[in-house]
Amino acid sequence: MTHLRRNAVLAFAIATVIVTQGAFADEGMWTPDNLPLAQLKQKFGFTPDAHWAEHAQRAALRLAGGCSGSFVSPTGLVLTNHHCARSCVEQLSTAEKDIVKAGFFAKENKDEIKCPEIELNRLDTITHVTDRVKQATVGKSGEAYSKAEKAVKSDIEKECVGSDKEATRCDVVNLYHGGVYDLYKYHRYQDVRLVFVPEEAIAFFGGDPDNFNFPRFDLDMAVLRAYEGGKPAKVADYFPFSKNGAADKELTVTVGNPGGTDRQLTVAELESTRDVDLIPRLFDLSERRGMVTQYRSESAENARVAQNDLFGIENSYKALKGRLEALQDPNVFALKRKEEADLRAYVEADPARKAKYGTAWDNIAKAMTTYRNLEMPFKYTNLAGTKYFAYARTLVRAAAERKKPNADRLREFTESKLPSMTQSLFSTAPVYPQFEKVKFTYILTKMREHLGTDDAFVKQVLDKQSPEALAAQMIDATKLGDPAVRKALWEGGAEAIAKSDDPFIKLAIAVDPQTRQLRKQMEDEVESVVDKNSELVAAARFDKYGTSVYPDATFTQRFSFGTVKGWDEKGKQIAPFTDIGGAFAHATGADPFALPQSWLDAKPHLNLAQHMNLATSNDIIGGNSGSPMINRKGEIVGLVFDGNIHSLGGDYWFDESLNRTVAVDSGAIIEALRKVYKASRVADELQAAQK
Amino acid sequence: MTHLRRNAVLAFAIATVIVTQGAFADEGMWTPDNLPLAQLKQKFGFTPDAHWAEHAQRAALRLAGGCSGSFVSPTGLVLTNHHCARSCVEQLSTAEKDIVKAGFFAKENKDEIKCPEIELNRLDTITHVTDRVKQATVGKSGEAYSKAEKAVKSDIEKECVGSDKEATRCDVVNLYHGGVYDLYKYHRYQDVRLVFVPEEAIAFFGGDPDNFNFPRFDLDMAVLRAYEGGKPAKVADYFPFSKNGAADKELTVTVGNPGGTDRQLTVAELESTRDVDLIPRLFDLSERRGMVTQYRSESAENARVAQNDLFGIENSYKALKGRLEALQDPNVFALKRKEEADLRAYVEADPARKAKYGTAWDNIAKAMTTYRNLEMPFKYTNLAGTKYFAYARTLVRAAAERKKPNADRLREFTESKLPSMTQSLFSTAPVYPQFEKVKFTYILTKMREHLGTDDAFVKQVLDKQSPEALAAQMIDATKLGDPAVRKALWEGGAEAIAKSDDPFIKLAIAVDPQTRQLRKQMEDEVESVVDKNSELVAAARFDKYGTSVYPDATFTQRFSFGTVKGWDEKGKQIAPFTDIGGAFAHATGADPFALPQSWLDAKPHLNLAQHMNLATSNDIIGGNSGSPMINRKGEIVGLVFDGNIHSLGGDYWFDESLNRTVAVDSGAIIEALRKVYKASRVADELQAAQK
Repeated sequence: MTHLRRNAVLAFAIATVIVTQGAFADEGMWTPDNLPLAQLKQKFGFTPDAHWAEHAQRAALRLAGGCSGSFVSPTGLVLTNHHCARSCVEQLSTAEKDIVKAGFFAKENKDEIKCPEIELNRLDTITHVTDRVKQATVGKSGEAYSKAEKAVKSDIEKECVGSDKEATRCDVVNLYHGGVYDLYKYHRYQDVRLVFVPEEAIAFFGGDPDNFNFPRFDLDMAVLRAYEGGKPAKVADYFPFSKNGAADKELTVTVGNPGGTDRQLTVAELESTRDVDLIPRLFDLSERRGMVTQYRSESAENARVAQNDLFGIENSYKALKGRLEALQDPNVFALKRKEEADLRAYVEADPARKAKYGTAWDNIAKAMTTYRNLEMPFKYTNLAGTKYFAYARTLVRAAAERKKPNADRLREFTESKLPSMTQSLFSTAPVYPQFEKVKFTYILTKMREHLGTDDAFVKQVLDKQSPEALAAQMIDATKLGDPAVRKALWEGGAEAIAKSDDPFIKLAIAVDPQTRQLRKQMEDEVESVVDKNSELVAAARFDKYGTSVYPDATFTQRFSFGTVKGWDEKGKQIAPFTDIGGAFAHATGADPFALPQSWLDAKPHLNLAQHMNLATSNDIIGGNSGSPMINRKGEIVGLVFDGNIHSLGGDYWFDESLNRTVAVDSGAIIEALRKVYKASRVADELQAAQK
Repeated sequence: MTHLRRNAVLAFAIATVIVTQGAFADEGMWTPDNLPLAQLKQKFGFTPDAHWAEHAQRAALRLAGGCSGSFVSPTGLVLTNHHCARSCVEQLSTAEKDIVKAGFFAKENKDEIKCPEIELNRLDTITHVTDRVKQATVGKSGEAYSKAEKAVKSDIEKECVGSDKEATRCDVVNLYHGGVYDLYKYHRYQDVRLVFVPEEAIAFFGGDPDNFNFPRFDLDMAVLRAYEGGKPAKVADYFPFSKNGAADKELTVTVGNPGGTDRQLTVAELESTRDVDLIPRLFDLSERRGMVTQYRSESAENARVAQNDLFGIENSYKALKGRLEALQDPNVFALKRKEEADLRAYVEADPARKAKYGTAWDNIAKAMTTYRNLEMPFKYTNLAGTKYFAYARTLVRAAAERKKPNADRLREFTESKLPSMTQSLFSTAPVYPQFEKVKFTYILTKMREHLGTDDAFVKQVLDKQSPEALAAQMIDATKLGDPAVRKALWEGGAEAIAKSDDPFIKLAIAVDPQTRQLRKQMEDEVESVVDKNSELVAAARFDKYGTSVYPDATFTQRFSFGTVKGWDEKGKQIAPFTDIGGAFAHATGADPFALPQSWLDAKPHLNLAQHMNLATSNDIIGGNSGSPMINRKGEIVGLVFDGNIHSLGGDYWFDESLNRTVAVDSGAIIEALRKVYKASRVADELQAAQK
């Protein structure tokens, strides 16, 4: 699964954005305002006009939580993956009615249920703001650079949003690693309702064992609907369904939001990515995987409550492990070292270039040494991983930040960011105290393990208690599981926070000075140094390679152009299509290879030769999940839901011979809706534009 | 904790033995027949005679399961760590009487209880057999080399054991990575009884958070007794207790069995150690840690049953993580690369040397590439991690191997190895089916995850079942939890095995051909290539640096010479001693910082200024746990139980400024036995020789 899961604050070290030199073959994640038209013409004989691209830009959607999607009808129907709507499906489930297991179909519009935390973003305009941003930071470094950069971004975003805070979202996006700053203006939908999902058993057939593998037989789809003013949203741009799907070797275009690539990090950054980010995160994911798996085995209700956590953990584990394996390949580092040496030699060869760019790599390397030392206290004082503390910290900080002028606030508390924040803060999604105890105990235990028994922060948090006892005591006493309590604290502001005797609020207040200090150090001594010097590396690269290139991914909209294509797996040819018959052939009856009863019942009526999943050479990465896959006419031929195992190294480089996108075939979607789920209301709406 | 836990078959890649060049300062793990006398005289003014060394050699003991110990009285009293006797203590516990928690003290000899699986080895003689071994393998390579080497070792060991199989153990030991082969002849004790252990709360005070840390306040001790003919063993060599313990800066000697060091591996071996051994093992340990921690939280009985597993997992995790961190230090790899480049340059500089040794490094690197490819199927077809399958495989293979001539058998089935094997096979230690189900499910899940859903071996094992269902079904049906059933199958041999309908026996038979084939490939294509070429590297090293050096550790007896010494921890001086008062000061009342009631009660009577633990500069590693720490008079001044966090990098190099051994002070042992546990019977026996 290519669902994006990144910690926004930690992301900088692994998601730093730099230009890549000269895309070749099917490589490339292109911004909508800079499609590689000459290459498209030459390679595919494809000459899209401006309207084609603008239409696709506005028919495609971003799910703010970390996925992609698209409008597929004029009345706001949205197509995305089951695993992108998964947390909504779980939030709407109860012990009595588990729709993760049973699936869901709203027979009429009125049966469509609101998802508590889904936000959709439609990209309306892109404006260049590079000059204004650079003007603000010129000649600055360290804390001053960091402060100026944040302030100018906050100002630009606030002006862009204007008075329409609810429906407008504006983000200043840093592309080409500081080469370009663009302002992305989105139309925001927060009233998003669930229309249809199949049973998880077919959405995620093969489960974790088959995740990132192919051949594959998944119906990883969800249908949502955007609402405005309590009614289905009317949208001008949407993708109609293709009649016949895609053929082998046919051009396929994906329009989605790849979360981040690291194709042009310096060697020092790649080494700290491997040692400080990937490996410790994989240890953490492994341990949580063992814990949550065992927790789920204890009862049917535990299994239900913790299923989404486990899904996320296993998906991240596999994705990050694939990235680690790429970085463990001695050839990859050799290639990266050579690329860097070539660019540095180019810089050194000319005194003017040397004076301008020469120190950038060493400065970044020094910042990485600082990062290696800061990262441990930064991470473990964050106490991330239980909803209660996350709510408490948001509330405590909001009370302080909202009183400040916009430009002085922590970035996530600036005006343009607040609607997304309050959507999750006031979410009605259930919080399960028993499971949160397990998770909070784990967090406290890891804090003590990594910072040490005698650390002052650890002593402040634990005092003389064990992690288990403290977690139980605080969770028994807190009221933050109730959205009304959270809303009252938000609205009550600083005064309400100061008066609160909630143990999580009190903890968040107590640790706030130290955690803010660490964050500031991270921003001033690492991030700003990396940003400033990466700009220089990017500029050197522009000097050497020119500008007809694409920027590293940034969870903003990108077009990728590929073809339907199998590959050679150690001498074995992997065909690009699977069919519905294959799903039945692979079913064992045992989870995760048990087909749902609905499919077993429908088998006699199904076209077993219908393509089910397909592999293409599109260049995608985590965050692209749910992306529409369209043909040159702009029709849906597939729904991106995964990459093959080789695609995981795509974070660092694109290998066209092996790297594949995996999608649900458009025909399988219609076949299942009509014959398995009798959801003709939805199928008709999807196919209406065909006629 | 420095308890040794290594998979014997996998160990080769990380425990390959090569000579290190020129020991300096307190570095060095010296074999008893080659003590660094000149250095001892020069550094410490210490001139032990031959008797001193021979006496110490025979007073010290090896615990065959992976620890060290020593005789401390003429009637067979043995001192080792609580954590070395831990599995025995757990095996002797029941839900009603948990002596891990409560501790144990045998008031009289007749109350001493036999440990089901402890074997003690006293090293009696060392004989050089290098010529005979090398003669047998000369001119051979690959499979032929592997076969010849195994055969000659088996022959030598069988001759050495003679007819006294029960009480004699003989091992051909490969030192200096093929530079030297020695025959180690041990006296074997398998009737070993538990005399005294304190409560785990004080043996492992501070638990995992304080493990590998210092200051420390642990009474990590166990007293056992060796029996022969049903009576306490009479021993001529034992260490008396010192009256006053050790003073700051005093010379301290440890005599123990370091499990393995990798100080002179080639760079290719270190890289595969990092990528193929350490990192995947740490992922596995992390996941099992989460699983077992959660399992233990489910009930008091689960907590008891799984405590030793968790202890072992956490201890290994921390030890291996420390090693990984050493290998992630860019300076360490730079040093290793330089050392290797220097030696290779020396070889290249002379045509004769080049002809003899020149290709060794590249050959090893090639074998490491093979290893990277073979390791995954090799590991996951082993199905290691549940007692049932381990028993079944031993029984199935034994039935086939015991029919063969000694020299043709798999190494672990040769005559000299059988007594250790049957001790654990016939062990009366309880097997807990519910917990084994959890572990077997995990093993099957990982097998499928790593080999893939469509792998032939996976399909053969799982067929159409889920891991959970198959584990439950097989464990419900198996009888192998009963030692009498195992004994009958062992004695019934091939016929009984063929007739058995036990599901684990049937599985072990079914997968035997493939797993033997993979093992053979590993031996022929990796191990024998590494062995043969490492011999060349070792010889080149002898050429360049001469022979006054110590071999990498091999879980055989080594002497280390150091002094009582604190260290500088990032500017903070760490004192070498803690005292009993410190334990009370660090107690919070919450696990793992809760002192047992016995200590709280005894506090008024205790000498709070008595040294509790001490740090020394001795050079030790996992396997040294339980080693006697003696003064120049050969008296016990401490009991080694841990190293500080910096000692973990000691696998790759010894850093005298930071690397420290951690021991229980001899005075704390006596103080606790007399005043906390009223175990004067034991204290008197320990102190008898003082008088």
